[in-house]
Amino acid sequence: MRILGIDPGLRLTGFGVVEVRQGAIEPALIEAGVIKLDGKLPVADRLVQLAEDLEGVIGSSGAHQLAVEEVYAHYAHPKTAIIMAHARGVILLCARQRGLAIEQLASTEVKKALTGNGHASKEQMQRAVQAQFRLPEPPSPPDVADAIAIAVCHARRVALAAL
Amino acid sequence: MRILGIDPGLRLTGFGVVEVRQGAIEPALIEAGVIKLDGKLPVADRLVQLAEDLEGVIGSSGAHQLAVEEVYAHYAHPKTAIIMAHARGVILLCARQRGLAIEQLASTEVKKALTGNGHASKEQMQRAVQAQFRLPEPPSPPDVADAIAIAVCHARRVALAAL
Repeated sequence: MRILGIDPGLRLTGFGVVEVRQGAIEPALIEAGVIKLDGKLPVADRLVQLAEDLEGVIGSSGAHQLAVEEVYAHYAHPKTAIIMAHARGVILLCARQRGLAIEQLASTEVKKALTGNGHASKEQMQRAVQAQFRLPEPPSPPDVADAIAIAVCHARRVALAAL
Repeated sequence: MRILGIDPGLRLTGFGVVEVRQGAIEPALIEAGVIKLDGKLPVADRLVQLAEDLEGVIGSSGAHQLAVEEVYAHYAHPKTAIIMAHARGVILLCARQRGLAIEQLASTEVKKALTGNGHASKEQMQRAVQAQFRLPEPPSPPDVADAIAIAVCHARRVALAAL
């Protein structure tokens, strides 16, 4: 089973696809990348571009489930969180329209699962994902590492539940 | 020219369609209503339902422009605003995918245009919309009145610019 992890944003939306393998806790990394949106475009046009690009990723990835971070109650920058939520809404819509199950994970759970620290920095997350998959470099930008981490965290849950 | 005003929400999304008439400042009311989403469904499923229903409204209304309130920096309930923004993102996406121009208006401008008071209550907005179109009852729920008000406010701008 394949899981698509997404880190939503209206400039950069990171994505990572992992595959749960029978009898293994740790998933395999299939692909990862970032959808870049033109920051000079109005938000509505960026959302159209995001939907188009994401449909391509969903189609080519063969993902069965989408894993995203939960919305939480307190953000340091509420306006930024509100803008991000526009992208998150479009991502949930596209995934559900294509029949993916949606799984929401707490940010602290994802960070703790990858680094042992629920408040890990972006750099720590990048290094943890690099180590997990023995990558030559840390995934960059951090949005890609975060998206892979969300997918890994959910994949472990799925694998543990199937044991 | 027809303008679709929307008041986004994940339980109730109000909509109102008005028509700008040549030589007149005040638009005509074409239709209005509310898209009700099932609060028991997960957010992603509600977004799918919202997109479907909204496509129906856009198609039948013949609207050329979408008018919505701006996102502002400070909300009394940031988490509610973040959830609402999921619906707003889907609404902007659907409208733009169908070629509508997007117009964003400050909440205070809309309230002031309809009631003279930039901080009018929901009831004042309902009564102002009732008076504007000589309706037998105030539009209800308030989400419908707010959506009509947004459309009216933008329609007046368009009409004034064309004089």
